Amino acid sequence: MDGESETTASIVNGVRMRLMDDWRILQNVFKLVQREETICVNPQQWQQQKIVDFMQPDELKKHINLTIKEKETSTLSDIEEICQQVIKYSVKTSHGRFHNQLFGQLDPFGLAGSWLTEALNTSSYTFEVAPVFSLVETEVISAVCRLAGYSHGDGIFAPGGSASNMYGLVLARYKRIPTVKSSGMFGIRPLVIFTSEDSHYSLKKAAHWLGIGADNCVAVRTNAKGQMALDDLEDKIKAAKESGLDPFFINATAGTTVLGAFDDLDGIADVAQRYGLWMHVDACLGGAVLLAYKNRQLLKGLQRANSFAWNPHKTLGVPLQCSLFLTKESDLLARCNSIEVNYLFQQDKFYDVTYDTGNKSIQCGRKIDAFKFWLMFKARGYGLYGHLVDHAIEMARLLEQKLRARPDRFRLVLDQHEYSNVCFWYIPKAMRVPSSEENEDWWARLYTVAPKVKEQMAYSGTLMVGYSPLSSRQLGNFFRMVFTCFPVLEAAELDIILNEIERLGEL
Amino acid sequence: MDGESETTASIVNGVRMRLMDDWRILQNVFKLVQREETICVNPQQWQQQKIVDFMQPDELKKHINLTIKEKETSTLSDIEEICQQVIKYSVKTSHGRFHNQLFGQLDPFGLAGSWLTEALNTSSYTFEVAPVFSLVETEVISAVCRLAGYSHGDGIFAPGGSASNMYGLVLARYKRIPTVKSSGMFGIRPLVIFTSEDSHYSLKKAAHWLGIGADNCVAVRTNAKGQMALDDLEDKIKAAKESGLDPFFINATAGTTVLGAFDDLDGIADVAQRYGLWMHVDACLGGAVLLAYKNRQLLKGLQRANSFAWNPHKTLGVPLQCSLFLTKESDLLARCNSIEVNYLFQQDKFYDVTYDTGNKSIQCGRKIDAFKFWLMFKARGYGLYGHLVDHAIEMARLLEQKLRARPDRFRLVLDQHEYSNVCFWYIPKAMRVPSSEENEDWWARLYTVAPKVKEQMAYSGTLMVGYSPLSSRQLGNFFRMVFTCFPVLEAAELDIILNEIERLGEL
Repeated sequence: MDGESETTASIVNGVRMRLMDDWRILQNVFKLVQREETICVNPQQWQQQKIVDFMQPDELKKHINLTIKEKETSTLSDIEEICQQVIKYSVKTSHGRFHNQLFGQLDPFGLAGSWLTEALNTSSYTFEVAPVFSLVETEVISAVCRLAGYSHGDGIFAPGGSASNMYGLVLARYKRIPTVKSSGMFGIRPLVIFTSEDSHYSLKKAAHWLGIGADNCVAVRTNAKGQMALDDLEDKIKAAKESGLDPFFINATAGTTVLGAFDDLDGIADVAQRYGLWMHVDACLGGAVLLAYKNRQLLKGLQRANSFAWNPHKTLGVPLQCSLFLTKESDLLARCNSIEVNYLFQQDKFYDVTYDTGNKSIQCGRKIDAFKFWLMFKARGYGLYGHLVDHAIEMARLLEQKLRARPDRFRLVLDQHEYSNVCFWYIPKAMRVPSSEENEDWWARLYTVAPKVKEQMAYSGTLMVGYSPLSSRQLGNFFRMVFTCFPVLEAAELDIILNEIERLGEL
Repeated sequence: MDGESETTASIVNGVRMRLMDDWRILQNVFKLVQREETICVNPQQWQQQKIVDFMQPDELKKHINLTIKEKETSTLSDIEEICQQVIKYSVKTSHGRFHNQLFGQLDPFGLAGSWLTEALNTSSYTFEVAPVFSLVETEVISAVCRLAGYSHGDGIFAPGGSASNMYGLVLARYKRIPTVKSSGMFGIRPLVIFTSEDSHYSLKKAAHWLGIGADNCVAVRTNAKGQMALDDLEDKIKAAKESGLDPFFINATAGTTVLGAFDDLDGIADVAQRYGLWMHVDACLGGAVLLAYKNRQLLKGLQRANSFAWNPHKTLGVPLQCSLFLTKESDLLARCNSIEVNYLFQQDKFYDVTYDTGNKSIQCGRKIDAFKFWLMFKARGYGLYGHLVDHAIEMARLLEQKLRARPDRFRLVLDQHEYSNVCFWYIPKAMRVPSSEENEDWWARLYTVAPKVKEQMAYSGTLMVGYSPLSSRQLGNFFRMVFTCFPVLEAAELDIILNEIERLGEL
């Protein structure tokens, strides 16, 4: 071929000739994923299956040949073997005893949906290249707006909760000072954000990125339940105003990261209204309660917020990433984010271009995150997830009962949490003393227990539960156990979990 | 169970009992994806297979039952049927005649890798939950740094090129004025960005989001080849300085969206150095040339840039999303973006926490985007992609020849493009006149041809090629044909493409 060297031509030809064969790799991977020890969803097997085959980083590097080379010739079975190794040393987050993060076991319909969108490999920007998926995204957003009580709402899928929270900040800033879009923030009065001291760190990072500054993200005290203290919020807004700053945004949290606390949304809405601030709700964790029957009141007042973020990839078992940003005002997202883009969002197309939703986004190419979530709802109806959310919360309350029933061995951080998080300490045998001896030293030692038990968890591979300190209460490390819709646990499983912590705690 | 109503308990129980059966849905989806008409990678079938079964939005809504309901009971075969419909009406981007976007057919190893990470469903923040994938990300970043000539570089995977470009802006701003991280941009001199008029719109959107303002994103003229004009760049930097603004950032483009032009990186590096500006390269499209043998010189000077962005999901056939941000300074990303996060990035872990890379990111939960890309390199070696990139560019040059050989029917926008984009007009029979009659009216009519042919493409489903105007040259709509590594085309295919445009152009 003209201009192409023989080497290139013959190499390229080789790739073309092998391509149909190469596609058989999907079968190999499918076979691997189908094995019970990959997905680990069969409760009969949890006792035997390891969640992780833990190795220290340097050791792991010797077990998997990570090096990328210029020339490499692998057969399909070489690749299968690599994938097998990768599975072996990866954490099986769908194992029923993985309770380490705010996400857990996958919903099979979610995974099926994600496999399909991966295979169809398109982008969410235009109806032209994503006809079905554009309509699906719109349908999911409408449904969530209805559930939230947003009668004229709008929204967009974002690549995670941090990005969704940023959407809230950018919209609020644009609403406050529309010229920021064109002229930036130079010369304006410093903007100030308010969020509780127990809220997610993404607010602070967003303040940094958006040019507001992390110090202008003011931490509001929390009360005994872990909720934003309304009096402190009001004091801090007043103080900011008095020092010439421009308070414009309150972030309420529905489901704090560690304790799972829900801020008083109605109370915060009153404050926001009184001072003319935008109210956003970081419901990345707790948004699942939108579907619940018994716990819906945790989100009471949500319909008064100007915007909120929700990550169905957390509690619901949708594969990562699945995050929604919703706002109450129908046209604000488009006005705020759209610019003229005539190579992609042409206005002379042969279909109604209002179906091209990509210009509302800060992204250009955008992964299809709506379909897997939609497919779950098509398979089961959203009400069913409501029952699963209620059940996960019920399991959390039951775990608290069981922890209280072993008072010498466990201690709760909150007597009762609001959501599906349960925070507690384990007290090893050697530390079980009369309460009069539980002095500062004793507590300091107790705070070192969780990291040690965690190490045993990793090496045994039998259970994974996270741990965390809580600086707002000057508390050191405790376990944070998180229940999610999947696995669908039975009460007996809770005793297994506590017994295993006790066993590992004495190793 | 205590507190749980019988309804919830029995519904939840039902889900648990059916769960192992539900997992069989993966088989159904796998079966659907395996069908030749889903993936459309077999060249023998392209003539018969439709790329898309196009319907107008309102019509499509009648064919797919989109509604999400509270109660829904679907069997596995119902779900399979839904998925079948979704496939039918979706665009088959892996069809060999889809040349509509900057991405194209998937590499099967990329899809296999993405299916595996979807199934293992974890997040890129810590080694604890992503031991293998953390090491894989680090390995890919090191390899790309080596290819780019960054001896002490660092990087991160971002959810797309817009986000990767934002990383560059945030790092540059932090380097210029470190206090912006804590105090924001209030009271500082207005910052100014320079980017070519043909560069991607994400720069302008980023300026808006980051508080710099879209108007402070200055458009620099392009030359005849579509490259940033260095004299205009320099003039505009000087003018900004003279009016009291603070120029801090030049975005060079390696592969512009429409023409595929590569800015003169060495020339821009000289200017950046002279005026003390950060130089970022948006190589989202053209970064693939890093691997090329014959076209590597297009990126000459890249090693002098402070940072760059590259989307392997474009030319290389990695499933969306796969975008890398790279910077030359080893510790800057961490210093700029990290904050204290003691529930996730604890410092008292039982392994070396430098392997927890998540705090460098603006995201918290972060999809595993590195593995699918790494698996492709393991399967074929990166050199092989270099040959495929060279071949795609070679095909583009050959198409130009073929277009020039039909001068009455086609007209090139640039006589020779630099990358794998080819921009051209189709001249319908009725418009073939002596060149003396090609007046302003004639051109105005020519600009309406592409949208009409595009409509025919959609309804026939035989070919998809995008179109675009180019405001920097006051040009109306023309076709933009893009070659990617996959499909691996033969020369004969180019005639089929041109013949099909001619056929559709006369309908």
